[in-house]
Amino acid sequence: MTTQERKAIDIPQVEARTPIPRQNLRVPGPTPLPPEIMAAQAQAMVNHRGPEFAAIVKRVTLRLGYFFQTTSPVMTFPASGTGGQESTIANLFSPGDHVVAIIIGNFGNRLAKIASIYGLQVTRLEFPWGEAAEPAAVEERLQGLPPFKGVLMTHNETSTGVTNDIEALTTVIRRHSPDTLIAVDAVSSLGSVPLEMDAWDVDVVFTGSQKGWMTPPGVMMIAASPRARAASKEAKLPRFYFDWGLALKKLEVWQHPSTPAVSLFYALDVALEMMLAEGREAIFERHAQAGTYVRGRAKAMGLQLLADHKYASNTVTAVKTPEGIDTKALLKKLREQDGVVLAGGQDHMEGKIFRVGHLGFFCEADLVETMDKLEARLHEFGYRG
Amino acid sequence: MTTQERKAIDIPQVEARTPIPRQNLRVPGPTPLPPEIMAAQAQAMVNHRGPEFAAIVKRVTLRLGYFFQTTSPVMTFPASGTGGQESTIANLFSPGDHVVAIIIGNFGNRLAKIASIYGLQVTRLEFPWGEAAEPAAVEERLQGLPPFKGVLMTHNETSTGVTNDIEALTTVIRRHSPDTLIAVDAVSSLGSVPLEMDAWDVDVVFTGSQKGWMTPPGVMMIAASPRARAASKEAKLPRFYFDWGLALKKLEVWQHPSTPAVSLFYALDVALEMMLAEGREAIFERHAQAGTYVRGRAKAMGLQLLADHKYASNTVTAVKTPEGIDTKALLKKLREQDGVVLAGGQDHMEGKIFRVGHLGFFCEADLVETMDKLEARLHEFGYRG
Repeated sequence: MTTQERKAIDIPQVEARTPIPRQNLRVPGPTPLPPEIMAAQAQAMVNHRGPEFAAIVKRVTLRLGYFFQTTSPVMTFPASGTGGQESTIANLFSPGDHVVAIIIGNFGNRLAKIASIYGLQVTRLEFPWGEAAEPAAVEERLQGLPPFKGVLMTHNETSTGVTNDIEALTTVIRRHSPDTLIAVDAVSSLGSVPLEMDAWDVDVVFTGSQKGWMTPPGVMMIAASPRARAASKEAKLPRFYFDWGLALKKLEVWQHPSTPAVSLFYALDVALEMMLAEGREAIFERHAQAGTYVRGRAKAMGLQLLADHKYASNTVTAVKTPEGIDTKALLKKLREQDGVVLAGGQDHMEGKIFRVGHLGFFCEADLVETMDKLEARLHEFGYRG
Repeated sequence: MTTQERKAIDIPQVEARTPIPRQNLRVPGPTPLPPEIMAAQAQAMVNHRGPEFAAIVKRVTLRLGYFFQTTSPVMTFPASGTGGQESTIANLFSPGDHVVAIIIGNFGNRLAKIASIYGLQVTRLEFPWGEAAEPAAVEERLQGLPPFKGVLMTHNETSTGVTNDIEALTTVIRRHSPDTLIAVDAVSSLGSVPLEMDAWDVDVVFTGSQKGWMTPPGVMMIAASPRARAASKEAKLPRFYFDWGLALKKLEVWQHPSTPAVSLFYALDVALEMMLAEGREAIFERHAQAGTYVRGRAKAMGLQLLADHKYASNTVTAVKTPEGIDTKALLKKLREQDGVVLAGGQDHMEGKIFRVGHLGFFCEADLVETMDKLEARLHEFGYRG
């Protein structure tokens, strides 16, 4: 190709920016942000290797330890929750390792898929979407398996609105394999519902800033137990960006191996301050009440829940779309006419369910408005439940 | 461990938040932000799968194509620039592939290191820190090598303040191996100095939001040529988070495989608008003048530059610390007393150089203040150059 033939790329024609509308954002993450947290991002940039930012990293890291309920250091990476899944697999295991994946929905599937892509032997313990992993059933299934190096599971399955009983599951897993590596995807649970990493003897826990933390997406937080950190030193899978060794070394001076998402740390710093002011137990109680309210209203409308049992999630509720109603059209109408934004179903649940997020920053009025508008639109769409 | 023995993790004692000070932030990224871009982050959160965000992703993606000068789609990931390095390696290659790494400093080293960690055979073409890769020298070195699958190189080496001549390097590489995969780390160059991905026949280019883009850190942008995309379909290295196939599929509907950093997109959207208003050539000219000014002032003070030649960078200048002066103490004084924040040296250059960033958002007065304060403090530290 000669210089003459080379075509310069012109400035593209694009649509002009429009303001973000005022919405009642009720997807299961990203969640709405309190004004203080939105505003915190807009502080001036600072050197990520300087003392001002180190003070923020220190404060955030220590406070995250409290919410993780762990004395292990909580590492942070610029990433989504999926980055936490990949970080877990790549740091714990070597090619060919046998792991057990307990799967109750889309995100459990994704964790198992990443394990397979990285060359692990994955035994899938699957439960129907909408069900939790019953500890007794898990214990029975483990009996027949060859030795395994670790167990992967989801705390709160965002795709189905189900919260696994991690304490009970960990107990049966440890009874079978005392030293196996237990990794828990707590992306849409941690900070909103109880999870005690050290007390429950969980080895890896990770979450994402856009869920219970009232912070914009972009920061993934992950903690590894002493057992997990020892395993990572032997693990042969390739990794650099998500490597724990590098992250832990830099965390000793409250820094990161590469450039962290500085403005999102400003937000997370304020968010943790607000969460401590509210109190951990009070936050859990607020989420429990939200789950009870949303499920109660849905059932009072005659709707069926995907998870109508004791494992129903207090951060997200999945509702079955009534027969004859177009889920996509219903959600579009709610968004465009009412400013209420719900999520559809994922994978084979697309078109069959819709999901209401009730985690992070919300007040009762947000949920009341959501369910009122939903009820009105359902009737408009011909629902007579 | 019984329940009684389990110790709850208490709320940690931390130091209270303090405001981010007003500083003249002159590290080579993260860079200062214009007030409009800072404020843009503070907009309300929005559904990352909804039409409002898709409009932003579309606009940002198309405009990035103009700054990359490519018709290939520009993918974005929540990550630092190092994530771009890992994404490049994991998507292009298979275990055992032979690649050539042209190394002129710390970030070239890092790219080669990631390639090694991922099991590639890496031939290192190293040049002394402070020098560029001379195209004639590279051409000669390539002659003696066994066939290779790709070449990895850095456009602007942030650790040394040197800008490689990518157009000339690509020409000699293509003359030797017409179809090899050429990947360019343009983290601290793209948007600030000329780089024409398609016209120069480069296969992979990546950058980070915190450099020339006047945006906070947290978004990594990467484009892959048709040749690179074809190679990625055959590449056997494990990846999921940074996988191009998943990213390109979701980009068809202006979405991402996992949750993107929404508020940073708000910032990037405004930043690209401002960059277009200023004009690409005008931005290049502003950076060229900045480089000339900073180098000129340093030399007028009698200081020695690490890169005192035609390849000296227009985004970052590395200055040799004069004999007898403690670099760390000098930078501390400048930061604490003058609010001027410079960067130290990396790796074996620690304590031997300091670096002045002049990329992204700056005006002449920022650079004048920087060099004035530097001159005064150097004299205070006993420098009589």
